Amino acid sequence: MKYEWQQLNIPELNEGMGSKAEIYADSLTKPVGSLGRLEALAIELARMTGELFPDITPPGVIVFAADHGIASEGISAYPQEVTSQMVRNFLNGGAAINVFSKSIKAVLRIVDIGVAADLEEEEGLVKKKIRYGTANFYHQDAMSREEVLQAIDTGFVEAKELIHKGVNCLILGEMGIGNTTASSAIIAAVTGQSLTELVGTGTGINNEKVQYKQELIKKSIEKRMPKTEDPIDVLMKLGGLEIAGMAGAMLAAAAHRIPILVDGFISTTAALIATMINSRASDYMIMAHRSAELGHQTLLKLLDKEPLLDLGMRLGEGSGAAVAFPILQSAVLMLKNMATFETAQITKRMKEE
Amino acid sequence: MKYEWQQLNIPELNEGMGSKAEIYADSLTKPVGSLGRLEALAIELARMTGELFPDITPPGVIVFAADHGIASEGISAYPQEVTSQMVRNFLNGGAAINVFSKSIKAVLRIVDIGVAADLEEEEGLVKKKIRYGTANFYHQDAMSREEVLQAIDTGFVEAKELIHKGVNCLILGEMGIGNTTASSAIIAAVTGQSLTELVGTGTGINNEKVQYKQELIKKSIEKRMPKTEDPIDVLMKLGGLEIAGMAGAMLAAAAHRIPILVDGFISTTAALIATMINSRASDYMIMAHRSAELGHQTLLKLLDKEPLLDLGMRLGEGSGAAVAFPILQSAVLMLKNMATFETAQITKRMKEE
Repeated sequence: MKYEWQQLNIPELNEGMGSKAEIYADSLTKPVGSLGRLEALAIELARMTGELFPDITPPGVIVFAADHGIASEGISAYPQEVTSQMVRNFLNGGAAINVFSKSIKAVLRIVDIGVAADLEEEEGLVKKKIRYGTANFYHQDAMSREEVLQAIDTGFVEAKELIHKGVNCLILGEMGIGNTTASSAIIAAVTGQSLTELVGTGTGINNEKVQYKQELIKKSIEKRMPKTEDPIDVLMKLGGLEIAGMAGAMLAAAAHRIPILVDGFISTTAALIATMINSRASDYMIMAHRSAELGHQTLLKLLDKEPLLDLGMRLGEGSGAAVAFPILQSAVLMLKNMATFETAQITKRMKEE
Repeated sequence: MKYEWQQLNIPELNEGMGSKAEIYADSLTKPVGSLGRLEALAIELARMTGELFPDITPPGVIVFAADHGIASEGISAYPQEVTSQMVRNFLNGGAAINVFSKSIKAVLRIVDIGVAADLEEEEGLVKKKIRYGTANFYHQDAMSREEVLQAIDTGFVEAKELIHKGVNCLILGEMGIGNTTASSAIIAAVTGQSLTELVGTGTGINNEKVQYKQELIKKSIEKRMPKTEDPIDVLMKLGGLEIAGMAGAMLAAAAHRIPILVDGFISTTAALIATMINSRASDYMIMAHRSAELGHQTLLKLLDKEPLLDLGMRLGEGSGAAVAFPILQSAVLMLKNMATFETAQITKRMKEE
């Protein structure tokens, strides 16, 4: 046990504060329960943070970028070079996550945790490359066990730093050509579920390629034989570096009682890994949206979470979570700023009831 | 024809600008279609406004408050006095719509269009009372035909004023104890649908009361015999003043190519009325959320619209629309601020495809 996250004590949810929030929500000037999921969110946030009126601003967004050796098998709609091109796009402020991060006034960090190219020093780029992409898991293990541990730690340390700087809600994002393949492989390995129920069209491939992708993953799992209950072994066999980094960051957030707003398919795979490492991690997770990617349904069921949005998004980068953040903020502001029946002097119910 | 809204020329959608937005969205640095509904929204907004990069800020929120004579039949969980108490709450900034309006930097107007009590002069209150609530439609027509026309015009004029002041997206809200009953009656009258499929628990009544409410509406429609294809007659027979006001405001927005973000059950009833008055009105409507109120499903089908959010909300006041507004804004910012593949120099697709 050489890493802090390996002996992590994630605090229990504060059920008492959750009950307080519930009672308080019922005292606000609205019919009981009429703000639906917003009320449930306010209660969840109180449980997580241990505060009745938590501040979830500013949110932090960490985007981990890494490449996947499996991309050379031609399972993606885009060539591998797009990973580093997109990192430059992040640094220039032109990607979806830049636009949405700015809109929610988030602190945004771009981390090269394993891009298969040398990136120039540039402002805003956190250079923590562990290796030049993973190996092709159809032929060999994606990485070494030590590299997995390092990647998780990189995410953990980065998130901890951001939290110490005052970030009060964490969104994780990723960029990595081939990472829907790695994610699908992880889920198939962990759940044993059929690949036809897991593998969809990713960022946009045709049906023929979907079948090829399913077959490739099936054969790879047979060859790699990941130990399905050991998340480190699963990552070592199948990758990827950015998924490990995101899982580490989630562990840091949970340990600090910082709510995690989980994005789509790849992020939720990382959420699964984090929960396998420490089962309490998922207590601090709120699912931002239902991804259009097929396998996301399996993940949501597995983690027993209902997403906030269902807008057919499947971009990654943390974009769906950033779009969903204002809903979380609405829940916080509702509890904090609405008047109560008593202060507003409003008749609570019909007398006969 | 003495009112402007009676001879309104609502412009056709700008399909050409919609196509431009679609092509432009596909040039942005993301897989085609990967932002799902956000892309569809950006295209819709371009069609509505006739601009590729429309500005939808600041949004305007107009809350119409009015009472319903039918409330004296005991169909609500709250007594009638709550309408005026809530208006005071709006003016004091303590209601949900205050909190959410502030959060989206909306211009907020509270209009007394028919509260059954004298409200004091207060800053922020627009006094346009047409009558002290509607009459009890179980016993007589809710109001006169002329009062309906006046109420619609009040909403129309109020919205026009706000639009001239620079509001670029319109949200309508309402407060009126008994207005789920009036809305349910309107929908039942217009669609002929069974009341058991329309009437739910409103702001929180029990099953026995639900049955009573269904029966009361059924008998009232039999007695009032609204002309189902004449929206003015339907409002005259069943009410309410705030529903008429909202419909008028929607007509003004549509005439000015201002997108309307429609809230829940009562707002969508007003949307139905507006669309019956001028069928093009619905071209300018985006449904903010799926209300927990049973009859909302019927309305959404009737208007052929899919809501953005499904969070089990059923408060009214425009609250759900205000919570959904940031999603609309995300769609606008996506189109406006993301880089294109060309400007960011990113490889568009695999060469073999």
